[in-house]
Amino acid sequence: MSKSETEFKSLLKSHATLVENTLIDLLDDARVGCEIERPSRLMKAMRHSSLAGGKRLRPFLVIESAKIFAVKSQQAALAASALECIHCYSLVHDDLPAMDDDDLRRGKPTTHKAFDEATAILAGDALLTLVFDILAKQETHNDANTRIELVKLYAQNAGLGGMVGGQMLDLEAEVKPSINEQEILTLQAMKTGALIRAACEAGAILGNASKEDRARLFEFGKIIGQAFQLADDILDITSDAQTMGKQTAKDAGKGKGTLVSLYGLEASQTRAKELLDQAIVTLEPFGEKASILIEAARFTVERKN
Amino acid sequence: MSKSETEFKSLLKSHATLVENTLIDLLDDARVGCEIERPSRLMKAMRHSSLAGGKRLRPFLVIESAKIFAVKSQQAALAASALECIHCYSLVHDDLPAMDDDDLRRGKPTTHKAFDEATAILAGDALLTLVFDILAKQETHNDANTRIELVKLYAQNAGLGGMVGGQMLDLEAEVKPSINEQEILTLQAMKTGALIRAACEAGAILGNASKEDRARLFEFGKIIGQAFQLADDILDITSDAQTMGKQTAKDAGKGKGTLVSLYGLEASQTRAKELLDQAIVTLEPFGEKASILIEAARFTVERKN
Repeated sequence: MSKSETEFKSLLKSHATLVENTLIDLLDDARVGCEIERPSRLMKAMRHSSLAGGKRLRPFLVIESAKIFAVKSQQAALAASALECIHCYSLVHDDLPAMDDDDLRRGKPTTHKAFDEATAILAGDALLTLVFDILAKQETHNDANTRIELVKLYAQNAGLGGMVGGQMLDLEAEVKPSINEQEILTLQAMKTGALIRAACEAGAILGNASKEDRARLFEFGKIIGQAFQLADDILDITSDAQTMGKQTAKDAGKGKGTLVSLYGLEASQTRAKELLDQAIVTLEPFGEKASILIEAARFTVERKN
Repeated sequence: MSKSETEFKSLLKSHATLVENTLIDLLDDARVGCEIERPSRLMKAMRHSSLAGGKRLRPFLVIESAKIFAVKSQQAALAASALECIHCYSLVHDDLPAMDDDDLRRGKPTTHKAFDEATAILAGDALLTLVFDILAKQETHNDANTRIELVKLYAQNAGLGGMVGGQMLDLEAEVKPSINEQEILTLQAMKTGALIRAACEAGAILGNASKEDRARLFEFGKIIGQAFQLADDILDITSDAQTMGKQTAKDAGKGKGTLVSLYGLEASQTRAKELLDQAIVTLEPFGEKASILIEAARFTVERKN
């Protein structure tokens, strides 16, 4: 294992812990904001949905992108945790019976299974709302212009033109007779790509980066978003439920078109490696400062779960 | 009809039209932001959920509160429309089978009836996300500090400690053996009160009002929020489905505790009038400038639907 790889593995763990602890504090703060009564069942469901572990890849990307521009650790942790709340809320809603109808997530019961559907819908809503409460905090950045830029970034990438729109296209694709390569790429760029890109851009925004540097991070995010999804689709076929902590081969089972079903397994693996090479080239101007992000790109392609 | 009352009725209509048109433009803009593909079914569901008419009381309060501080009309319309998106998304989610399970809203099929559950969940999510995209726009206010203050206000009043928390308490109250006056007041202050208060405060924030003036608008919003809910509970008993455009007497039918069931009908009507008097006193320092807001308070208490 190279020095960078060892460092990456260690940082992936420590950033996940930082995000977990930041989320615990943020949820506690949010509770204090409640008038008189504290809807404790809702709080519990929000904790269940957001403190369930996981790789925390999106917040990792926020923190490491921010590090390139010497952003303060607390600011990066807050922006990272806000982004993770978007990811967590989306999992809660996507798992609902009316959507993907999943019982298991990271080896644990999904929120509507652990609680009930109404609580899961509201926990998702509350997590999404919390995102913007976090971004509005002065602790996230001293300059209100920067905070507003993050609000815009997160809202646009999470909404109709991003993640939620992509989830809608995904649901529609399930009942379509067929889906072509471009439709799959668009769907994935919105459903999973948007948040990964936003994670990388967030660091540049926090660090008041130049337009060029921000564009580089955007591009890097775009490429690894594609690589991440491709790796996911490959794992959906090659891995098993125990390793993934969730149902696998379910896309194939639903007859759902993925890039792997179009390209074939081997060509998909080759394509994933190409994307990794592109990602590395994109970050070259940052030199050594980007070594951990490059390891993160490698990880998204080569991970086993 | 007094001059103020005539003017109020006319403004209620024209502000509703302004908000409707602003929402149409905002939804069109949001669509342009989509990458390549436009999830048209989701767009349609968002339009169905947000352009269904209604009194538009909350945005009316934003616009009229803002007028006291001579805020530009476009800024007030944007902040008002953003708040209305929160209200509309909450109706979509609250109507879902897992929650209040309503088929009818303003005389039309609810979003999950007109489309399907998954689309309704996503349309709600996308509307909530759009709120913050709107608030982040420079057109909403030139000063990013003001926009961030609105982000904070809306997020805190819509989330765990406000509207969503109140909806959770409401669902829990349905299965409780009994609920006392304080519990009902808290629940209502969160579920419906929070957004009405936020509407009134938003005008003060947009207008860079003094701390005292903002506190007055907060207080006014708090009182009319209570009055609004009390009037709603009275109407639930005295009105019929045709007038209300939705199912009535359903709270009583569910054996759900309301203030009317605690106080009795006559005492509730007296209490609503007391609240109106308090609301009027709160706005006295603004003199003639607050005459329309006072008519709005009268309307919330005396409305027939």
